Amino acid sequence: MKVSFAMEKLRLFGQLHFVSAAVALMALFPISESRAADPLPSWNEGPIKHRIVRFVTDVTTKGSEKFVPPEQRIATFDNDGCLWSEKPVYFQLLFAIDRIKQLAPQHPEWKTVQPFKAVLEDDQKAILASGERGLLQLIMASHAGMTTEDFETIVTKWIASARHPRFQRPYTDLVYQPMLELLAYLRASGFKTFIVSGGGIEFMRPWVHKIYGILPEQVVGSSIKTKFELRNGKPVLVRLPEIDFINDKGGKPVGIHKFIGRRPIAAFGNSDGDLPMLQWTAAGRGPRFTLLVHHTDAKRECAYDRKSHVGRLDKALDEARKKKWAVVDMQRDWKVVYPFQLDR
Amino acid sequence: MKVSFAMEKLRLFGQLHFVSAAVALMALFPISESRAADPLPSWNEGPIKHRIVRFVTDVTTKGSEKFVPPEQRIATFDNDGCLWSEKPVYFQLLFAIDRIKQLAPQHPEWKTVQPFKAVLEDDQKAILASGERGLLQLIMASHAGMTTEDFETIVTKWIASARHPRFQRPYTDLVYQPMLELLAYLRASGFKTFIVSGGGIEFMRPWVHKIYGILPEQVVGSSIKTKFELRNGKPVLVRLPEIDFINDKGGKPVGIHKFIGRRPIAAFGNSDGDLPMLQWTAAGRGPRFTLLVHHTDAKRECAYDRKSHVGRLDKALDEARKKKWAVVDMQRDWKVVYPFQLDR
Repeated sequence: MKVSFAMEKLRLFGQLHFVSAAVALMALFPISESRAADPLPSWNEGPIKHRIVRFVTDVTTKGSEKFVPPEQRIATFDNDGCLWSEKPVYFQLLFAIDRIKQLAPQHPEWKTVQPFKAVLEDDQKAILASGERGLLQLIMASHAGMTTEDFETIVTKWIASARHPRFQRPYTDLVYQPMLELLAYLRASGFKTFIVSGGGIEFMRPWVHKIYGILPEQVVGSSIKTKFELRNGKPVLVRLPEIDFINDKGGKPVGIHKFIGRRPIAAFGNSDGDLPMLQWTAAGRGPRFTLLVHHTDAKRECAYDRKSHVGRLDKALDEARKKKWAVVDMQRDWKVVYPFQLDR
Repeated sequence: MKVSFAMEKLRLFGQLHFVSAAVALMALFPISESRAADPLPSWNEGPIKHRIVRFVTDVTTKGSEKFVPPEQRIATFDNDGCLWSEKPVYFQLLFAIDRIKQLAPQHPEWKTVQPFKAVLEDDQKAILASGERGLLQLIMASHAGMTTEDFETIVTKWIASARHPRFQRPYTDLVYQPMLELLAYLRASGFKTFIVSGGGIEFMRPWVHKIYGILPEQVVGSSIKTKFELRNGKPVLVRLPEIDFINDKGGKPVGIHKFIGRRPIAAFGNSDGDLPMLQWTAAGRGPRFTLLVHHTDAKRECAYDRKSHVGRLDKALDEARKKKWAVVDMQRDWKVVYPFQLDR
């Protein structure tokens, strides 16, 4: 009622006044919003939450020495183990395994050839033992040979139907509630949020907008090559069984520079694969924020770090301690891990 | 006065009401804006201008069958010959030539070795005669071997100080006023505007925001490889003399898919190198807009098409006519070419 009364008043003015009023209201908006409620309700009060809020307040406060213009507020997030879980192994590998099984009838030779034999026999140890070369063979056999449109359909179907072996839920349920809040908080504070993941860029793009609110063009990841072709006059992009780019370790700053073209002011990771991204981010001029998620919560999720095959956190943990980067202790800092654990 | 009165009224309401009012006003904003003034004052009235305005009106009108949600409003622009001039040759080649001359004292061998000899002797015919391999050698010698930060500095200095041989003005003055207006019009209509150029991505990024209002992360271009290194503990990215990606011809849809991750609904080019980008854009579902700039204006700029070595427009012109894509006739459709020709 009150709003429509105000709108009536506003309708009296010309269009320029509408614009001025809208701009004035938009300027008030973030203040009202930030006073309204805790932007990080699933984070326990403590040093990490306080450091996040202080950093965001610093870079968004006009007149502050640490103010950063909105277009420079770039924040990059690893995906596996940082925004969603990565155990028992990277979910993308589970996708590749499901896809190999689906394609097996067309490939009778896979019954006797590794690493395909291991996949068909559900021998996870043998799959991992096939090493980088074996995993690459699985990725190529499952991710290449179709058009980009067909691959998008395949991923979209899998992500909607597959279930995590422990939680018996869609993989997209296994995202971290505190990180979802952090993404939303940063965006509400004028940040552009990017995923910078070792995972496949085309494996992530079909679902990240719905799950994380991150647009396809703000995803940086590993890729295979594609080729433009006219098929009966219809343009298609065909996915080739050839590595284009590995967006991991030193590849992460390379990928950031290639895709984003400037240095983030905040970076979030959880493993040694993220160390160069955090180093690159921290080395820029002006205020910087670098954070590692340390998986310390065997009960609600998993506990792993220095000895883990997937998501090893060893050198990066040492450097974080030395350089006083923020290190999330999941057990201590997070009220809940997954959205489905929230009291509703 | 009236606005501040309205603001007083609005201050009576709680923050939720502020938000609702702001959202309501923002919804009104584009309508008021488009009625305010001609968004394309440097375009002559005629079929091309009318097709542009009709397309933008269609995809932004809520309830229209052709409405496209803002996050899907992706528009891609070639750079050389589409947003700025490309004669006598691509400006980036002129940058490479200036840089080779600057580095020559450290390379006495260049005095006798082609294509460097041709550069040092200002023999443009011999430079072009050195072919793709020669040009690649010039690019590598001038674009690689430094850190990404150093390269950005080199480009920024050159673009500020170099002058176009005919117009004796900075190269960034030789941008097309009608295309600047088109970029601004699309952004005001909720589009994200991207450059998709055969030119070097790192050659464009330092200045495109200031000149075109396009952010570095919305530039897709050709690239050489970079490598992450710690130099005395300081992280750097070093530019390597090795091609990473050629964003031309069939590479343009590949680059679009790699960097943007979805199909544009509008694409703008001027040469056969843009044909696959336009084909890829036109082949998507829903409303599409594809446009070629035809250089027909020898007096104000240049006239060239089917036989030109730089910016050849031959097959794309045939296809545009067959498929009834918009073709700008510079002489007919543009009131002015460059911003400095505007009456002020």
